[in-house]
Amino acid sequence: MDKWKVKNTIKVFENRILSVIIKKCSHPDKSIEWDFSVIETFNWINVIALTRDNKFILVKQHRLGNDEISIETPGGVIEEGENPEECAIRELKEETGFEGEEIHLLKRLWVNPAIMTNTISFYFIDKCRKISDQNLDIAEDIEVITADVFEVKEMLGNGEINHSIAVTALSLYFLSEYNKFGQIII
Amino acid sequence: MDKWKVKNTIKVFENRILSVIIKKCSHPDKSIEWDFSVIETFNWINVIALTRDNKFILVKQHRLGNDEISIETPGGVIEEGENPEECAIRELKEETGFEGEEIHLLKRLWVNPAIMTNTISFYFIDKCRKISDQNLDIAEDIEVITADVFEVKEMLGNGEINHSIAVTALSLYFLSEYNKFGQIII
Repeated sequence: MDKWKVKNTIKVFENRILSVIIKKCSHPDKSIEWDFSVIETFNWINVIALTRDNKFILVKQHRLGNDEISIETPGGVIEEGENPEECAIRELKEETGFEGEEIHLLKRLWVNPAIMTNTISFYFIDKCRKISDQNLDIAEDIEVITADVFEVKEMLGNGEINHSIAVTALSLYFLSEYNKFGQIII
Repeated sequence: MDKWKVKNTIKVFENRILSVIIKKCSHPDKSIEWDFSVIETFNWINVIALTRDNKFILVKQHRLGNDEISIETPGGVIEEGENPEECAIRELKEETGFEGEEIHLLKRLWVNPAIMTNTISFYFIDKCRKISDQNLDIAEDIEVITADVFEVKEMLGNGEINHSIAVTALSLYFLSEYNKFGQIII
């Protein structure tokens, strides 16, 4: 399969968190020209964190995309000069005050390469303990909750956890070699 | 937990596929004002489709977000007047020429309510047969492939399938009551 030829890229919008880029393309075989819009933004991480007694560490916050209070796995944006693993450890600590003893990469994926340029790295951090207070950005209000696997299953089933990234993180954990809870149906 | 008060919303960018909206907010308790950027776009569907001999129907296409050839589960945008289930059936048929006998909703989620306003509905369509040619949009070049569960596991493991939406769809299927393949580790 041949790729479209990118003839030109034009940044048509930019703000603090994202840019919109138009890629002006021509088809490799047919005489078709097409403008593809893509959103350029930072790479992300997301974290499944378990306490020493195997409770999931989750965060609750108001999300403006749907104007709902959302229950999620901790996550955030990789900063300049940071690697994804450092970011996962930092975000967990800042959002929740917890720190773990082991970290494992579950999966690194393209968020949505149809329209976005960035990756997301999912980590599992095990044996976490609360070691500090939260250290939140000015516009973050985050409530930390812990939940055992039965409570997480229930929140997945009844839609209380309904953020696709959190659901992906939990699914990847349950399908990974690190899953401590046996076969799960969600 | 109280929500931010949305005082004003301003559309700062708009094209055929998305708008960027600034929500000007004030904090419910503290005297903080903050501008949240959200991307407004269509609701999506994504489909796990199995043939009558339990092969996964996948699509291969060039994606401009990462400039790679991507192996994915079929998916697309819900059109005006269409419900998500109709959209799943239509997109499967248009992209692959396959039609199934049973359709089940696996999960409806918010794509990323931190920065996006839309939902994604994941469906499982069973007992599919090829009934027609593809019916593609002008800018779509899609190669249809079928793969058994071992091949899908291998593509997940070696990163050939690396689009987070496809990985989420497959994970939700493997963790669902409809999974025909027993406990899977990916």
